[in-house]
Amino acid sequence: MNRRRYAILASGEFAGRAAKTAHGVIAYGSDEVVAVIDAEHAGKRVREVVPILNSDVPIVADFAGALDFSPDALLIGVAPAGGALPAAWRATIVTSLEAGLEVVSGLHQILAEDPEFTAAAARGGGSIWDVRLAPEVPLFSGEAYRVESRVVLMVGTDCAVGKMTVALELTRAALIHGASARFVATGQTGIMIAGSGIAIDRVISDFATGAAERLVVEHAPGADVLFVEGQGGINNPAFAPVTLALLFGAAPDALVLVHRPSRKVVDELGTPLLSYRAAIRTYEALCATVKPAKVVGIALNTGDLDAAGARAEIERAQAETGLPVDDVVRFGPDALYAALAPAFAIKGVPLAEPVPR
Amino acid sequence: MNRRRYAILASGEFAGRAAKTAHGVIAYGSDEVVAVIDAEHAGKRVREVVPILNSDVPIVADFAGALDFSPDALLIGVAPAGGALPAAWRATIVTSLEAGLEVVSGLHQILAEDPEFTAAAARGGGSIWDVRLAPEVPLFSGEAYRVESRVVLMVGTDCAVGKMTVALELTRAALIHGASARFVATGQTGIMIAGSGIAIDRVISDFATGAAERLVVEHAPGADVLFVEGQGGINNPAFAPVTLALLFGAAPDALVLVHRPSRKVVDELGTPLLSYRAAIRTYEALCATVKPAKVVGIALNTGDLDAAGARAEIERAQAETGLPVDDVVRFGPDALYAALAPAFAIKGVPLAEPVPR
Repeated sequence: MNRRRYAILASGEFAGRAAKTAHGVIAYGSDEVVAVIDAEHAGKRVREVVPILNSDVPIVADFAGALDFSPDALLIGVAPAGGALPAAWRATIVTSLEAGLEVVSGLHQILAEDPEFTAAAARGGGSIWDVRLAPEVPLFSGEAYRVESRVVLMVGTDCAVGKMTVALELTRAALIHGASARFVATGQTGIMIAGSGIAIDRVISDFATGAAERLVVEHAPGADVLFVEGQGGINNPAFAPVTLALLFGAAPDALVLVHRPSRKVVDELGTPLLSYRAAIRTYEALCATVKPAKVVGIALNTGDLDAAGARAEIERAQAETGLPVDDVVRFGPDALYAALAPAFAIKGVPLAEPVPR
Repeated sequence: MNRRRYAILASGEFAGRAAKTAHGVIAYGSDEVVAVIDAEHAGKRVREVVPILNSDVPIVADFAGALDFSPDALLIGVAPAGGALPAAWRATIVTSLEAGLEVVSGLHQILAEDPEFTAAAARGGGSIWDVRLAPEVPLFSGEAYRVESRVVLMVGTDCAVGKMTVALELTRAALIHGASARFVATGQTGIMIAGSGIAIDRVISDFATGAAERLVVEHAPGADVLFVEGQGGINNPAFAPVTLALLFGAAPDALVLVHRPSRKVVDELGTPLLSYRAAIRTYEALCATVKPAKVVGIALNTGDLDAAGARAEIERAQAETGLPVDDVVRFGPDALYAALAPAFAIKGVPLAEPVPR
């Protein structure tokens, strides 16, 4: 399969949290990124704006500037709340389709249903991949209870704390250490990275658990362990139903709690963030009513703390919970993987032991 | 507004739980029901098959038989799991539309998107109301926290235990006693009864809490108290996300737990039913993380117990929980309403006191 050559549209947003799709695809995607479009940072390299990405992909002012790098696809790199398309981006999408590019979008708004876009695609030979468009799936049936893989679900204290990244890093560590591990994408960025998956938040509510189950059933054959991307947070009043759809539908054997210590409240409404112990208690209590699963470790996103602050928070989380805790981006995933591998054992058979380093 | 004259299609299913839409509309709907179609019970009256309904509506073998009673609408009275349309019903729907009737459906499968049905409607002057088709709604915003009505949400130990019925009966009792009360429909049968509402289980997961919030915000003006129909059960692995969407999105001030004592497990998978105390603990613990709300009373559906068994179960539930408990269908809603009215008080102002009888 040919790798795409992406220009990523992130106008005015590349530096911020709204561009997490752009950041994720640059960090983990199997496709190549040739340019980022954001006039605010035009002329810089990605690493100058988002140091953690450590990428020298150029940032350009507009689509015309991106064409110098011969993209064959335009990725909508920003996920606005609610998933609607900012009006200002329409012209760039039309121009891309007229130029024969594939436009890849994770928005709720389905681009392929928009007559202006389909007309532009017809004129120029471009195409559209609406990543969020969910397939029809059956209702939850309990088939997920019978898969032979160990299923590990990331659960968070909130949205956008790093659940996808932790799942990707643990998958990478497991593969390096010889386990047959798979990342299971449940949101638009994860799907763009993995090339498959279902955006659970886009599924009709009655079928959301069925969609999570379908993902587990389809990814399980031949895999020792599945690391399932989580969504939302169990006390995020807007998005918790999506969280619960994964908690019940994926039928996990173990949970990894993901938290960003700098986050103090869930949302603009002031919903209090759960403490480590309250989050663990809430997730485990719910699982206990259906299929028991424990939180076996904690992954922190300490990107906005200094090194001392990060270490202190890791120690605090360990002291409060007695669980293995680490930041898998800052310190690499091996230590946490090593600590958790026993808990990921399948039907009593341990996974491949981590290689000592 | 003219009342519809419904023929209810319930072929082979009228006696059973799958026909709860038919039963609900016969018991509570503001439209008239002129005939039920179910060949298995043709020639009988409704009360002979479903005694609790106490209705003398005739049961006929087929649509031709129903025409003797001059229906102007056909209601799909059975809700198959997953909401797909049984093939055997297509002919009846086509015939109805060709005969100029309105076809009212709560199925997931949208009839108005089916070319065979739209062609039949065009030929015969019939029309289609897809009750489950959800409107576009914004994301949850917290606006539900600011409504002036007291919001009371029914929560259940499972699907199909009687949450809608309890909400309807409590609304009726509150109105009789002078409170400005409204029933808020969140599922297809409730919408058919009330004439408005949103089928939360049909809403895209990301927007399910927003849909619940929208219902509360739109029904609140002028109402002292809203009785919101619940959905599913918090440990039903298939449908719990819909339950949680209401628990967070409707932002209730108080909860009424609804249970059917004859139910022993949640589903065919053997998921254990929660005890009264475990159900209360689970619902209250979740609410406590977002907006605190307590279970203030328990409504039992004892329809399949004898009178002594019903009384014994009511006493057991009272003893286990210390809460007011009753069966609002078997014994009428007044006693439970009277016991709960203080808990439904709005901002410290009591609702109308129940009339002594």
